[in-house]
This record gives sequence, C-alpha cells and structure tokens, in this order.
Amino acid sequence: MKTKHAVFIIAFFILMSGSAVAQFGAAAEPLPSWKDGTSRTTILEFVDTVTKEGGPDFVLPAERIAVFDNDGTLWAEKPAYFQLLFAVDRVKALAPEHPEWKEKQPFKGVLENDLRAALAGGEKALLDMVMTTHASMTTAEFEAVASEWLATATHPKTGKRYTEMVYQPMLELLEYLRANDFKTYIVSGGGIEFLRVFSEEVYGVPPEQVVGSSIKTKFEMRDGKPVLLRLPEINFIDDKTGKPVGINQHIGRRPIAAFGNSDGDLQMLQWTTAGKGKRLGVIIRHTDAEREWAYDRDSHIGQLAKALDEAKQQGWLVVDMKKDWSRIYPAGK
Amino acid sequence: MKTKHAVFIIAFFILMSGSAVAQFGAAAEPLPSWKDGTSRTTILEFVDTVTKEGGPDFVLPAERIAVFDNDGTLWAEKPAYFQLLFAVDRVKALAPEHPEWKEKQPFKGVLENDLRAALAGGEKALLDMVMTTHASMTTAEFEAVASEWLATATHPKTGKRYTEMVYQPMLELLEYLRANDFKTYIVSGGGIEFLRVFSEEVYGVPPEQVVGSSIKTKFEMRDGKPVLLRLPEINFIDDKTGKPVGINQHIGRRPIAAFGNSDGDLQMLQWTTAGKGKRLGVIIRHTDAEREWAYDRDSHIGQLAKALDEAKQQGWLVVDMKKDWSRIYPAGK
Repeated sequence: MKTKHAVFIIAFFILMSGSAVAQFGAAAEPLPSWKDGTSRTTILEFVDTVTKEGGPDFVLPAERIAVFDNDGTLWAEKPAYFQLLFAVDRVKALAPEHPEWKEKQPFKGVLENDLRAALAGGEKALLDMVMTTHASMTTAEFEAVASEWLATATHPKTGKRYTEMVYQPMLELLEYLRANDFKTYIVSGGGIEFLRVFSEEVYGVPPEQVVGSSIKTKFEMRDGKPVLLRLPEINFIDDKTGKPVGINQHIGRRPIAAFGNSDGDLQMLQWTTAGKGKRLGVIIRHTDAEREWAYDRDSHIGQLAKALDEAKQQGWLVVDMKKDWSRIYPAGK
Repeated sequence: MKTKHAVFIIAFFILMSGSAVAQFGAAAEPLPSWKDGTSRTTILEFVDTVTKEGGPDFVLPAERIAVFDNDGTLWAEKPAYFQLLFAVDRVKALAPEHPEWKEKQPFKGVLENDLRAALAGGEKALLDMVMTTHASMTTAEFEAVASEWLATATHPKTGKRYTEMVYQPMLELLEYLRANDFKTYIVSGGGIEFLRVFSEEVYGVPPEQVVGSSIKTKFEMRDGKPVLLRLPEINFIDDKTGKPVGINQHIGRRPIAAFGNSDGDLQMLQWTTAGKGKRLGVIIRHTDAEREWAYDRDSHIGQLAKALDEAKQQGWLVVDMKKDWSRIYPAGK
C-alpha cells in the first residue's frame, strides 16, 4: 500500500506539471484556421492573460463567460437569415390553411418569391413572420419541424446544408475557449428554440447556454400529459439593447468576451467590455466576396456601421474574414 | 523521461481505480443528515440507476438536470417568504419618499406591521409589492441592497441570518447530485436577481443556473457607461404553470429530477416526471413543528394540497422533515 501511495504522490506532481501535459497528446496549435496576425494573436493573448493564475488579470473559471452572436458570427446570413429561409418554407407549407396571406405582407411577398417586399416592413415584420410561422404547436412539435428542415434544406447559392455553413475558425475558437474553462454562450436575435435544435451538435453549445428571441409558451395538460404550447405572441427580442437584457436574464453575470458582426451586437459589446478587468470585444467583418460575402454599412441584413465606428474608439478587435481566415467552412462539407 | 512516462501510466490507472479513490479521502457516506429509510434510499437508488453506464436507465451527464424550488424546499419560508421580509424592510426604508403608501395596500399593512392585511391581496399583490420595492435602480444597485440585507438582517423567530436557515440535508443533496455530474438549478417563484445574490455562495448554484420571477430591465447609457435599469413592471412569474415555462426558457431541456414543497411546484413536478425514462419527483413536507414548522393544506404560504394528492397517484417521493432529517439547519449556525 505504501508504494501505491508513493506512486500516487509522484504521479500527482507529474500530472500537475506542464511537461507531462506537453508529453501526452499535447495540444496541437490552437486556432489552425486563423492566419498568423493581429487577430489571432489578440485572441490568444487575451486567453493567456485571463487564465494565468496569479497574474493581475486572472479570471476565475466560473467567471469566464464568452458570448457569441450567431447570424453572421457563427454561421452565414446571406441572402437572408437562415431562420427566415426556414420561415419562408414554413409559410409556403402553411399557406393553404391561410388564404388571407395572399394579400398580407410579409406573407404575400414570400408566396410571390419577392423577399424584398416581404422584408420591407423591417425587423419587426421579419420577427412577426418568423414568430407567426413558428407558433400554435407544442415545443416538441416545433423541434421536430425545425430538425427536419435543417436535415434536408439546402442553401440557394452554395447547395450546402445550413449547418455546414458555420465558420470553421469560429468552431475552433469556441473549442479553444472551452478548453480554457470558458463557458460559451450563444446570444442571438434568432429564435432560442430554433437555435437549440442544432447548437449542441454543431457548436458544442448546450441548450441552457443559448439565449435568443422567443415567443410566449403556455403550459397545459393534453390527454393527461403536460405540454408547452407555443403562442403567436412575442415574448422577448434578443437584439440590440435586448442583448444585454437577455444576457443578464439568462446568465446573470457579465461576460468577459463578446463576439458579434453587426450593429445588433453593439450593446452586447458595450456591456461586455465596460466590465472591470481585461475584456475582449470582437467584430467579425464580412470582407470576402469570393469565399463568403462582403458587406457592412449598406447591408439590409447584418448592417455594420455604428459598431464599426465604435470599435475604433473602444479598441475592439475587428476580424477581417478574407485576411484572417485560411478557411471559411468546415472541410469536406 | 522514460521513467516519468512509466510512472505516469501506472499512476493513471491507480487514479482511475476505485481503490485509490477509497484510499485518498474517499467519499464519506453520502447524505449524512438523511436518516436511513425510504426517502434516503429512493434518492440514492435513483442516482445509482441514472448514472450506471450501460444500464437501461443511464442518462448522459449533459442531460442530468435537477431542479429545486427554493422557498420551503432549500430554505425556510415562515412566517413569510424571506424575500417578502426583505421587501418589508425596503418598504419601511423607502416609505418617506412614498407618502401615498400610507393609504394603499399592501404597503399600508406593511407600515402598520400588519402583514396579514398586506398579504390579503394574494400572490399577485405580494409579487407587486416585491417587484415595486425592487425596481427603479440599476441591477448593480439592487445587488448591493440585497447583499447588505442578507448580511445583516435576522429572522424574527430564530435570530439566525436568513442564509443560515437553509436545510442541511438539501445542501448535501445538491452536492451529492453535482458529484454525480448533475447540473443543479434553482427554479423559484422568488426574484431571480435576489436569489443570485446568495445562490452561488450558499447553494453552490451559479447565477446562470437560477430561474426565477423577474421584472423588466432596460439597457441604457449613463455618463457613457452602460447600465441595466430595473423597471417597476413584471416580466415573468416563475410559479405554478410558469415553472415549466421558465425551465424551458432557461434550460431548454426537461429535467430528470424535481424537488418542491408546495402547490406552486405541481406543474414543475408534472413536467419533469412526464419525460421518458427514469424520473424523480420529490416533495419536501414540513412536518416538524419543533425544529422548523409544520404546515400543508391550510397554509397561506407554501400551501401543499393538490401536489400532495397527486404525489400518491404519480408515485412521487414525499419527504417527511421530522422523520427523515436528522438535522434541519447547518451545524454551528
């Protein structure tokens, strides 16, 4: 027994030493799809700084919260938010039951394949349509409908599944942060239940770490079984000033790192970086018209103007997709 | 280097073996403040069953969600919800600024030390008072006020701090579940921001695992700094049918175990135990008039009637505080 004990003690110290970690299946270089340069370095240095025990900017693991916008930050958002394309398909599928939609925007535009007309009503109309087509069913029924769509629908330009249009460098970043004891959250203007259908499998983000827009739900008993019914009524819009509100409601703790790509993320970046100690604010800028899309100030979807101006004043990192990323989408997809 | 390697490998297997675990500060008997009997056995067997790899009822760690009501389940709730006693103190402190409260219930009752009159308006009036006294300040300001109160106020009967009136057997249960890779959540009718002030320190439950009632908050810039302002408007009431709604909104996954003590927990227990596979529904019954309080069907606060009837039909475990717990509050407090 004594020997066993001694071996244990020795092993314990070896385990704790960096050399053993380096020796055994040591970490490959982190963030392989990020090219060498300021963006990659800034991220690596931030993580080193806040995880360095005894350092002046050390952050306890429990407080290492990183929040990520989804549309345009973790996956693409052109020609329109993917959830909107899902809603379009739902409108078409449900149209026979709703003859009034033929005369009513945004449904009319959708049915006439005129997305521009459908979108003319702005974000509120957009969310209305999304929410309306997502309601009047149980949460379980919605999950089934959304899963089915994600498993079968393909993007009009790339022909890929939508879940294949996630950004490989961001997948690596999520993984890298979690390997450094960060809790990674999605904080999206998209629907919370829609995101949860794929967030765990695709991003490694479990449902309880997804914050998003929502419609109201109602508990009721059906044939002696409890269900949650999705009501056609907006509960919360997790965009712009709503993002810090959603973060506070769900997480209850200020993040130390925030990643966004549009003016919808401005307040989330402000809220995150206004906290004490070392903070990281990052904007993913769409600059790659060849491999992805290039857009900013004049884009209807994913408009980036105010947040880009403020990035300079605040010292937020602006990632240039074209220059900083060696790959956009995961390999072989 | 070779020796180091060999030692590491040996140590690894020792570390992984049960004998080493038993040898080194091995787990004491779990749930020491739970007396031997059906309640303790039922809980231990449930945990064994869902954590047994390869077993028919094995549940993946990510899905091991356990939800706990707070008032009357994790800490006492007599003579009134502790947060209400906090609100009472706040009403008294704020009364000089609100002369109209002298004529308006529930404030009138509070100022006249007639809590019964204040409570006559039912749960809605109760929540109104709580929310009103909690609003019109930033989230940071509220946190400071609530922290200060918890650090100084004492219970009228026991003279203890409120955070000392948590149930030792439940603290052990929370810890035991987490040691078995459960994620433990609080799902309370109480205010989410109030709970978060002490949940991590007292229960080991971090803010992101607290679900509760809330008032609306609003993001705004003050002197160039972002703040979240608490508005005097109810956002969500996390009680009764609201509990499954809150669980779905925050966790997005159905729990496999739920612990409550009153009719306010009925729907949470229904929702939890209606899921597929092994489930655990538990009601903590207040039966100990000497060490705590004894109440159920006729109590204004913590009424337990419907849920007690349904417990029989559904096979939920009813814990008898007097018979099942060898200790109520933590030692030395």
